Amino acid sequence: MHITILGGGGFLGRKVAQALAATGRLGLTPITSLTLFDLAAPPGLPAPFPVTCIGGDVAQLPDGVITRHTNIVFHLAAVVSAAAEADYDLGRRVNLRGTDAVIDACRGLAKPPRVVFTSSVASFSGGQSAMLDDDARQMPRNSYGAQKAAAELMLSDASRRGFLDAVNIRLPTISIRPGLPNKAASSFISAILREPLLGLRTSLPVDEDFRVWIASPGFATAWLLHAAAMDSSLVGPDRGINPPGLCASVGEMLDAMETAHPGTRSLVEVAPDAAVAAIVGEWPAAFAATRAPGLGFAQQAPLADLVAEFKAHDLADTRAMRGL
Amino acid sequence: MHITILGGGGFLGRKVAQALAATGRLGLTPITSLTLFDLAAPPGLPAPFPVTCIGGDVAQLPDGVITRHTNIVFHLAAVVSAAAEADYDLGRRVNLRGTDAVIDACRGLAKPPRVVFTSSVASFSGGQSAMLDDDARQMPRNSYGAQKAAAELMLSDASRRGFLDAVNIRLPTISIRPGLPNKAASSFISAILREPLLGLRTSLPVDEDFRVWIASPGFATAWLLHAAAMDSSLVGPDRGINPPGLCASVGEMLDAMETAHPGTRSLVEVAPDAAVAAIVGEWPAAFAATRAPGLGFAQQAPLADLVAEFKAHDLADTRAMRGL
Repeated sequence: MHITILGGGGFLGRKVAQALAATGRLGLTPITSLTLFDLAAPPGLPAPFPVTCIGGDVAQLPDGVITRHTNIVFHLAAVVSAAAEADYDLGRRVNLRGTDAVIDACRGLAKPPRVVFTSSVASFSGGQSAMLDDDARQMPRNSYGAQKAAAELMLSDASRRGFLDAVNIRLPTISIRPGLPNKAASSFISAILREPLLGLRTSLPVDEDFRVWIASPGFATAWLLHAAAMDSSLVGPDRGINPPGLCASVGEMLDAMETAHPGTRSLVEVAPDAAVAAIVGEWPAAFAATRAPGLGFAQQAPLADLVAEFKAHDLADTRAMRGL
Repeated sequence: MHITILGGGGFLGRKVAQALAATGRLGLTPITSLTLFDLAAPPGLPAPFPVTCIGGDVAQLPDGVITRHTNIVFHLAAVVSAAAEADYDLGRRVNLRGTDAVIDACRGLAKPPRVVFTSSVASFSGGQSAMLDDDARQMPRNSYGAQKAAAELMLSDASRRGFLDAVNIRLPTISIRPGLPNKAASSFISAILREPLLGLRTSLPVDEDFRVWIASPGFATAWLLHAAAMDSSLVGPDRGINPPGLCASVGEMLDAMETAHPGTRSLVEVAPDAAVAAIVGEWPAAFAATRAPGLGFAQQAPLADLVAEFKAHDLADTRAMRGL
């Protein structure tokens, strides 16, 4: 089995690569080779199979990234929300033209590869009162979400035509992201847990009863691996999957942290930010996600496990990266 | 008021141009100029304002098609269903890249033009049992519909960003189309009325109880004109409009024709065609369309008027074109 990860240098791409390297298999099938692709060639990683690292523009995929041997493409290459809002051309080029390039690379192949595409909760709207069904309309209120929803349409159509075999996973907001805070409006959804667990102060730009739809890095990675290995005939014509994330209020997240690590909650200072609240206020707070469990996607573990997962897998690396 | 019609050489583009020329106004506003654009420069038409005709590729819009003076763009340029299914690249180029080119032409302008975009019932699925609400998810089962739905997403996002001011009209199947039968799966939905009204035999590839969601050329044109003139602040963030078409069975359509013109129904021969039935069987037969009437879109007139409209406006031209 030959696997390619587009966006292989990103946070989730690395997690997927590490998971593949750890077992040498996808599902029950041994992995023959792994290709990591990103804007700059990503670093390799120790693995029981050869790993090739290639840099370039996803909208003009170089030869060798998707080949006639490729069985699985993880298409995680994206310009994320704040960046796509700031630079319309860049977002459209990477998120939409990049997906067209993936379709074009696949459609010439004798055997259509499985394409696991990361779509996003940002492709929906509805805000705090939302409880979206699996067939809810994607009516994004940001360019990133619009480009993701449009890319889903193109991938679903390409699947119908037999060019490829797509599974589109609409990822919740990831928490706890390792590493540094960033400028994304969603940054605080990780920072309010990560920073106190590092012993650092942080600020909360919304009320404590603000609810978010979240997934941990570990569950997001597991969903992508399952989407790659599953029997896609069960998916049917609707290639979009709302995975079973977790709806939690910010206050509940802080409670879980305080229970596991008394004293951490006092490091979070409420500092209302109307601009951030306006953006994140558009995102749907909850999904019914009734279809995914029947397709074998695991239910996101509760909040206590979110904190435990970060401590077990990402705390040491984050400390090291930040020189703490 | 300066108006541009992309796809100005097509059937609906001509109808819109003729309606504008007939009154010299859009709503209450006098028209200053009209630009007709199509793959080949369309013929002009007599009008109380200057008409400019330009030919070219919509995905690389030539200078002068959308200018800093442009107030309204009717974006009707499209590769239709059968053609987009037969030639994936062509459909994607015109239906999606063409829409991006419209966005790019508009976003540099000081005043964002109104863009009236023709989306389609083909961007939905659901089949005979469907009764789709206004917020139904677009899950197309053909490349044309996928490209139209993706283009809607891009136009809605461009509206949110203030690049332009889009209204996306999901047109029902048009009946009675003037002119000749064609290879489209939907061709029979016009042919079963048009051909007998011309005194010609035709065949019906589905059962008489097969239901379709239709609009007459006159109502479709009126909806596009209303979308151009209306107060778009009433539309809100949801730029997609399901206009109030008509759900009718093929048998009801034939009954209406026979009532107005006894003897015509015997010219229709039932000749089941599984391939055609499979394609049109995916299309939703009905929409609730509860939002559009409140926004001023007129309810499609009943079936008797469909026949009368064709006789009044299109029968003579169709006879002349076909040498009958």
